[in-house]
Amino acid sequence: MGFMQALRNRWNSADTLVCVGLDPDPAKFPDAFVDDDDALFSFCRDIVDATAQYACAFKPQIAYFAAHNGGEAALQRLIAHINGSHPDVPVILDAKRGDIGSTAEQYATEAFERFGADAVTLNPYMGRDSADPFLQRFDRGCIFLCHTSNPGARDFQELDVGGEPLYQHIARTIAGEWNAAGNCALVVGATFPEELKVIRGIVGDMPLLIPGVGAQGGDVEAVVRNGATADGTGLMINSSRGILYASSGAGYAEAAADAARELRDAINRCR
Amino acid sequence: MGFMQALRNRWNSADTLVCVGLDPDPAKFPDAFVDDDDALFSFCRDIVDATAQYACAFKPQIAYFAAHNGGEAALQRLIAHINGSHPDVPVILDAKRGDIGSTAEQYATEAFERFGADAVTLNPYMGRDSADPFLQRFDRGCIFLCHTSNPGARDFQELDVGGEPLYQHIARTIAGEWNAAGNCALVVGATFPEELKVIRGIVGDMPLLIPGVGAQGGDVEAVVRNGATADGTGLMINSSRGILYASSGAGYAEAAADAARELRDAINRCR
Repeated sequence: MGFMQALRNRWNSADTLVCVGLDPDPAKFPDAFVDDDDALFSFCRDIVDATAQYACAFKPQIAYFAAHNGGEAALQRLIAHINGSHPDVPVILDAKRGDIGSTAEQYATEAFERFGADAVTLNPYMGRDSADPFLQRFDRGCIFLCHTSNPGARDFQELDVGGEPLYQHIARTIAGEWNAAGNCALVVGATFPEELKVIRGIVGDMPLLIPGVGAQGGDVEAVVRNGATADGTGLMINSSRGILYASSGAGYAEAAADAARELRDAINRCR
Repeated sequence: MGFMQALRNRWNSADTLVCVGLDPDPAKFPDAFVDDDDALFSFCRDIVDATAQYACAFKPQIAYFAAHNGGEAALQRLIAHINGSHPDVPVILDAKRGDIGSTAEQYATEAFERFGADAVTLNPYMGRDSADPFLQRFDRGCIFLCHTSNPGARDFQELDVGGEPLYQHIARTIAGEWNAAGNCALVVGATFPEELKVIRGIVGDMPLLIPGVGAQGGDVEAVVRNGATADGTGLMINSSRGILYASSGAGYAEAAADAARELRDAINRCR
């Protein structure tokens, strides 16, 4: 079963649009992990086990692993743990890769073979041939940056290109030309709800990964109203810091579960 | 001494604009490495030692390491070897990173602390705040994608934004606003010499990293004529496959040295 089917199954069977972001920052870890050499893995594992029932996907951010020696081994073990203990929850590797074709082949190997991810985030700036090695993996998800959640999203993504902003042109290109196998999705920041509405109008039922609720200030109600498909799905609404660091005390896992459940419920009240 | 000064010193002292790209693909390794478990490191080390005298920079492509378990350790050892044995030759980590600020901090740690690179390639699509964690490292080089060497460069980079193509707008923005510390450079493909000429006109003496000669078909004479600064420098002209895989026989290192020297001489005849 491919990523897109797994995601749709999960939306329906678990009744949740929450994507749990795994951005492990040792400086923010609960006190229990202070002297734990294996903390990158063991902290994330605890969060995964506590939140899986509320998750439509897990999204490890590779940069938080790649900053540390041994980080890749921790990431491999984490994804293997998710696959083994929570096989219904697909894994998105947040890596924002993008390079010429021969190099993109290597990055596809990194994401899909070495780490075993079901989907990967990608940067479209280098164009179609940089995406092809990922697009050709029909069973994996290719989640392209469209309009990101950060302030700098306005710098280039909103430039007018022939009567529409660049991010809309990119959404149209990916939905119209790159998505022949039906394995594409887009990243749209929760912090730009009007832009989200326009993108949903362009891409039909394509899934959208939505960072930016919680620490970055995005509004859940506006995201669901402007981003959900007619059947009330179509979204992976990500929270990382708001779930991971809900408590620094001994009850960090329960606090993470509470935060994930509350986000699920807040979303579902708007659907 | 920062990256930019090291690069300028190297251009002048070694009289070379050649950047040696390190894209180790085990499927293409010389026969001597067939049963070598340490081949990622040892092949690249041999190439480095054979070509250092002709190199203004080394550019390991992280994807070729990240596709393999243990690849990061090999990359660390390789950069440490370059720093130890060829301390005058700066190292560019080709990673094309780009993410929101908090994540970009982690990627900066990966490139500069974990791997010890002097410069890193970056994707500008997410805008200024995604670049800041790198720009603030005044001693390191920030090399942004502008007009890349691949066919897909035309898909988005050449879109007209207010009377000029996007890649020119990006060049202007980086040269005018992002380069306050003088630590920026741009990636411009050798396969687009006319675009290179325009970019040189926009960015003054900013260094340009030029992939695409050799396997990708770029023309050295056109690159130097259109891209060099008035003093005949300003360029890091990269060759990867043309040097690495010059011979699959026992003489692979000598063949790599010959290829690097020939490229240096071909460039210098045009300066």
